[in-house]
Amino acid sequence: MKRIDGGVTAPQGFKANGISCGIKKSRKKDLALIASERPCVAAGVFTANKVQASCVVINKELLQDGRAQAVVVNSGNANCMTGRRGFNDSRTMGQITAKLLRLQPKCILVASTGVIGAYLPIRRITAALPELVRGLSRKGSDHAAHGILTTDRVIKEVAAEIHVGGRRVRIGAIAKGAGMIRPQMHGPKHATMLCFVTTDALIEHAALQGALQKAVDASFNMISIDGDMSTNDMVVVMANGMARNPVIARGGKDARLFARTLEALFIDLAKQMIRDAEGATKLLEIVVKGARSAEDARMAARAVAQSTLVKCAAFGSDPNWGRIAAAVGYSGAHVDSDTLQIWLGRELAVTRGGPVKNNAGRLGRVFSRKDIRITVDLGLGRHGATTMTCDLSMGYVRINSAYRT
Amino acid sequence: MKRIDGGVTAPQGFKANGISCGIKKSRKKDLALIASERPCVAAGVFTANKVQASCVVINKELLQDGRAQAVVVNSGNANCMTGRRGFNDSRTMGQITAKLLRLQPKCILVASTGVIGAYLPIRRITAALPELVRGLSRKGSDHAAHGILTTDRVIKEVAAEIHVGGRRVRIGAIAKGAGMIRPQMHGPKHATMLCFVTTDALIEHAALQGALQKAVDASFNMISIDGDMSTNDMVVVMANGMARNPVIARGGKDARLFARTLEALFIDLAKQMIRDAEGATKLLEIVVKGARSAEDARMAARAVAQSTLVKCAAFGSDPNWGRIAAAVGYSGAHVDSDTLQIWLGRELAVTRGGPVKNNAGRLGRVFSRKDIRITVDLGLGRHGATTMTCDLSMGYVRINSAYRT
Repeated sequence: MKRIDGGVTAPQGFKANGISCGIKKSRKKDLALIASERPCVAAGVFTANKVQASCVVINKELLQDGRAQAVVVNSGNANCMTGRRGFNDSRTMGQITAKLLRLQPKCILVASTGVIGAYLPIRRITAALPELVRGLSRKGSDHAAHGILTTDRVIKEVAAEIHVGGRRVRIGAIAKGAGMIRPQMHGPKHATMLCFVTTDALIEHAALQGALQKAVDASFNMISIDGDMSTNDMVVVMANGMARNPVIARGGKDARLFARTLEALFIDLAKQMIRDAEGATKLLEIVVKGARSAEDARMAARAVAQSTLVKCAAFGSDPNWGRIAAAVGYSGAHVDSDTLQIWLGRELAVTRGGPVKNNAGRLGRVFSRKDIRITVDLGLGRHGATTMTCDLSMGYVRINSAYRT
Repeated sequence: MKRIDGGVTAPQGFKANGISCGIKKSRKKDLALIASERPCVAAGVFTANKVQASCVVINKELLQDGRAQAVVVNSGNANCMTGRRGFNDSRTMGQITAKLLRLQPKCILVASTGVIGAYLPIRRITAALPELVRGLSRKGSDHAAHGILTTDRVIKEVAAEIHVGGRRVRIGAIAKGAGMIRPQMHGPKHATMLCFVTTDALIEHAALQGALQKAVDASFNMISIDGDMSTNDMVVVMANGMARNPVIARGGKDARLFARTLEALFIDLAKQMIRDAEGATKLLEIVVKGARSAEDARMAARAVAQSTLVKCAAFGSDPNWGRIAAAVGYSGAHVDSDTLQIWLGRELAVTRGGPVKNNAGRLGRVFSRKDIRITVDLGLGRHGATTMTCDLSMGYVRINSAYRT
């Protein structure tokens, strides 16, 4: 796998654009479009939240045939908890885009992100869609990446190239998400993080859906910014087959290569999201090992990543590992304080039920870094999990106490 | 039930004291003692965290015989994750207190609260115990209430009087807790909130334990400040029988009166804890109804109470009910956005899947209050639950990013 530039327009046959239509008072870009020149095999994973935005419900229905050709996205308004009118607005956004692209409405996925419970300014959107479509470009990934942002400060964009059966295959993606981030995205049956993936790979739908779920489980589904799961989270991938590689089938080595590449790109995007998280000053990686089961490992890692106190300690550069022990203890995982070991960076902080002596200075230096790795060995088994989060700063509270004002 | 003054020394036969022994650099009080002149029937509930402080492990063992006569408490140090040395220190604290009180060591409960992972300055404690015991007084409840505080700004103290079989029975309690508060206290088998209860009631152990668990489940176990469950939470009650009432047996109407009184006192203390919570400026009461099961109601209420985003919105007086809907949606409870109704105060914010129009001003006024009631009707059943929390302010982050520095 080779990293390349170009984002979602790196793969052959994809164009993108992003403009401002006036949803955001700041006049920043708030409308984005990614479109393929050929029909695509498409797959998606969506939030496990039971309160779901119109776009989530609509896309799950559209993706039942495993096909799509474009995705139109607005930012600044989640169009969630907006009743029947909200549904109609999302459908209108898709239908007008379809007409302008001369495609069937069922080929157009829709996505929204922003405040919940406010109606979409659908007339502003439909009035701006012709300009959005006219501006589609093979160099438009950056514009689209800007169009999907909310509180994000920077765009998140990746692309990579692999070889399948001698043919060059490219995968590109853009993502957003800085708050209300604790994605749990599942199946075609079931993230406000958004991630849109394009590829010119020729791939079967089952292989695409499988690779997507596997990559999401190992990346976005293991991060948390604030522990609040959004009503709008989604990752969708569109594969237009223009690389003309031997078709990637489920279970083969090419499918594994494709899944691994997707996973590496998603982990990169997940880190970009955490580094740009609301108010964040540090990235925390929590590695749990020695767990009795994989589920225990995930529960322990997530409890530490979601602990308000651990995140405040990181912000304050205070190596207060007692809060890590407490979080592991209430995680629901099997925990024995006598077998528990905790490292901050490479410094062992606690072993055999008690503190390691004379290391306060070294622990303090680890917690002063921008990147902090916390390793927890439960000492009870062979299972592990890794999760990523950020610190909790006064900046986060400032941003989220005045989000709509 | 009549409210009275006097805290834990309101019941007959109880004395208390609190002094400074130098655990806290601030020289604030950090050692407390409550003692009965007669042996007591005693019951306790303890944190469900699997990482437990020495004092929790020791008290669970001591209370197996349902007897105790005093509790000695230090603040400023949780004596948790301190290995064998920590256990020995807790036992030493109890043993020296026993000797000074001329009691058996098994009659002395111990409790600690403060930083995790640091050894107790046991010599300072043992050197101060004689002064602590000498100062025991029938007016010492305030002193003891000060001695158990950590980041609390004010003491929490209550007392009440009821009549049982014509005899006057008194119950008094002190509590502490402003951070790392999400108690789940269970069992004699299995809360850093601390609460110490005294009563001169004559009561059977089973009735006392039953009343305690029921009252804790309806009060402390339903509150959250920061979502972090402590390793040291405990509520213990000592009943010395000096009221000479007809013995209160399990299942009778006197037991119900006793439990109701305990519950009312605990809800009062829980509210005092939330009003004094680290950085808190508001009290939020979350009432869930219409849930399919009692567990669904509790899960939905707790998810809202633990949502970082809902708590930031409350701090900012932003009636962002979309965050409430999102939290309910990811709570794990059965939720249907079409039957979901949310009131802020008495103002209906959302019904039939969409927002109520033209009420932004009224919703804003509700969220500007010091006391905010959020009512969520899931519209799916007959079960309900109520939980209390506070807002999340920049002050909380400031306190907890510099807790040990």
